[in-house]
Amino acid sequence: MMRRLMLIGCLALPAMAAAQEGSVGIVEKRVFSMPSYTTVGGATIRDVKVGWEAYGQLNAARDNVVIVPHFFTGNSHAAGKYKPEDAAPGYWDAIIGPGKAIDTGRFYVVAVDSLVNLNTKDPNTTTTGPATTNPDTGKPWGMAFPIVTMRDFVNVQKALLDSLGVTRVHAAIGASMGSMQALEWAAAYPDLVQRVAPVIGVGEADAWTIGRVELWAQAITLDPNWNNGDYYGRAEPTAGLALALKLVTLDARHWGWADKAFGRKLAKEGDSPLASWNNRYAITATLDAVGAARARTGDANHFLYLVRANQLFVAGHENGGLEAGLARIKAKALFLPAKSDLLLAPENARKSVDILRRLGKQAEMVEIDGDGGHLDGVLAVSRVGPQIRRFMD
Amino acid sequence: MMRRLMLIGCLALPAMAAAQEGSVGIVEKRVFSMPSYTTVGGATIRDVKVGWEAYGQLNAARDNVVIVPHFFTGNSHAAGKYKPEDAAPGYWDAIIGPGKAIDTGRFYVVAVDSLVNLNTKDPNTTTTGPATTNPDTGKPWGMAFPIVTMRDFVNVQKALLDSLGVTRVHAAIGASMGSMQALEWAAAYPDLVQRVAPVIGVGEADAWTIGRVELWAQAITLDPNWNNGDYYGRAEPTAGLALALKLVTLDARHWGWADKAFGRKLAKEGDSPLASWNNRYAITATLDAVGAARARTGDANHFLYLVRANQLFVAGHENGGLEAGLARIKAKALFLPAKSDLLLAPENARKSVDILRRLGKQAEMVEIDGDGGHLDGVLAVSRVGPQIRRFMD
Repeated sequence: MMRRLMLIGCLALPAMAAAQEGSVGIVEKRVFSMPSYTTVGGATIRDVKVGWEAYGQLNAARDNVVIVPHFFTGNSHAAGKYKPEDAAPGYWDAIIGPGKAIDTGRFYVVAVDSLVNLNTKDPNTTTTGPATTNPDTGKPWGMAFPIVTMRDFVNVQKALLDSLGVTRVHAAIGASMGSMQALEWAAAYPDLVQRVAPVIGVGEADAWTIGRVELWAQAITLDPNWNNGDYYGRAEPTAGLALALKLVTLDARHWGWADKAFGRKLAKEGDSPLASWNNRYAITATLDAVGAARARTGDANHFLYLVRANQLFVAGHENGGLEAGLARIKAKALFLPAKSDLLLAPENARKSVDILRRLGKQAEMVEIDGDGGHLDGVLAVSRVGPQIRRFMD
Repeated sequence: MMRRLMLIGCLALPAMAAAQEGSVGIVEKRVFSMPSYTTVGGATIRDVKVGWEAYGQLNAARDNVVIVPHFFTGNSHAAGKYKPEDAAPGYWDAIIGPGKAIDTGRFYVVAVDSLVNLNTKDPNTTTTGPATTNPDTGKPWGMAFPIVTMRDFVNVQKALLDSLGVTRVHAAIGASMGSMQALEWAAAYPDLVQRVAPVIGVGEADAWTIGRVELWAQAITLDPNWNNGDYYGRAEPTAGLALALKLVTLDARHWGWADKAFGRKLAKEGDSPLASWNNRYAITATLDAVGAARARTGDANHFLYLVRANQLFVAGHENGGLEAGLARIKAKALFLPAKSDLLLAPENARKSVDILRRLGKQAEMVEIDGDGGHLDGVLAVSRVGPQIRRFMD
């Protein structure tokens, strides 16, 4: 500690500011339950449960909430650690904490697991979806689970905030699929939500996104173990899910990142891919390892439901399409697309910003610089920390 | 004819120039055979056959050859039609013909099928690969076929040109994998090749390309019918090959194209993807149709061999890597990447142009404008017709 203080004493002013930033510390997962929930499509799901975490304190007026929905493969672990020895903190720890861009000294930050969250086998995720037991049959829902949308994810989150007596949402902010939910929050509950910040997000899934996520899904349905979604209690479509997750991993990146991280490096020096089919490149070996690891905690059917929810996304879900949906929004908006994003391109974010402005609303856009691709919105989000901090004020 | 002449009489000068452009007309596929070929990897293949087409006339000096290798899913049908009633001419008909950018009034244009060409079930493709009967066993090679490289593709093409007594290659030009072969021509036979024009091409497969094509391949190996490549005479891995070809189709495009061609249009008006898993978007239905159609004429093992050949590509295949390989080239180079290419990015083409220039060689780069993605190098190549025409002079 002495050594640390001495070091701080030697540092210049910007570092002093950084020294005031802290961690939210040890966090715990909670579970929110609803006896039943009726989807946008009109189906009723009994015994709905989703996990959530909160950082900071809810104020007396209960109006200092920042809601943080998660991205496609993520969960509600946005900041802090469960145990001091955890390898890494939550995914947005760089911007959530005391003194950070989303200042937990001021805000009560609520991060929630979505319905049909991918990570059903991760003990720190709680979700309801096709892998959940249907109380009416005593068996997993499988593909009989109703098709759900971002609005459904948001409505369950709204029920959680209602249970806390929240009177106002200071901001809805999320990355990727989290940004879709954030926009959906603003469109669904315009009088509640003051600010919306879609990070690597867009107002609607365009044809490109619809097509890309579809091909992810088809890797799963190609696996014979998928068996039309009926695989619980037997061999699961792990290989198909792993390939889907490899596609996610690469689609969320960019050639700039790939070239720097791997280049043409071999998986094993001297084992040329000309000599044998077993000899690989470093990038393909890494994709295989990442896909296999992520598939171990995921559920293939949940993945398919997430794909459909993403394809169905148009902010506001109005018959009139994107413009009619965005017209519902009263919140100030700050779009933060990643410059090198190949999945949800900045042009697509720009489209929503232009519509919002044409409608007379406050909307800004700042690009996250970098060549890391879509994932820059998670791994490099601190690059727009100052912009997020200002927007929160 | 009278009507046509009258119309021409009314047209202004630029149109007159266009009117002088013609079709190569009816073309025929020929077959080149080699009793045996020894690969870069040291394996010998007996009875090698590849298809080829030629447009224009070989001159007396036999020095007016333009060699045109083909792209990943293509074959040697680069211009003209087999029958007047063919739906479409060869893929580069816009730039190959009398008076066109690659003027068959001056040049003898030779297009050749590669080894392990994908389209084994297309009667207009002739190739040698894993689906070919191994004369030593009387059975298809399967995955026992030797791993081959762009250099192998080029060496077989070189044997064809040798058989014609060709003394000089005026230019090597190709799109995508065709551009890799064109560069390999220039690096392997520097005293023979005068010009090289890689269209949507790069000097080496970078980590991004290695990763993307790997995931295409894994769609095939995930299909249980693949059976480690041993499927001849039984059910083939058609579903896996179809998914691989859907990935190719989308990866070769761009969100700009997808949005204009499909937007959020449904496959069938009124059938919302919220209501049923069977209800689809227009883009996903089209991808399915394209993938299924292309899979019908393709061979899954050949696809895997093409993937490996692409991954192995570094122009010149020198131990010293890209710079050592490019150092072998004496030809003038014109790189023509597509501005919106997400597969072989212009930055990667630029890297080779910079190296060639640093080495004191003549190298230029002109981007093909557009938002059609990689495929702009095939479908929109006429946008750089004037640049190709000048380069050929």
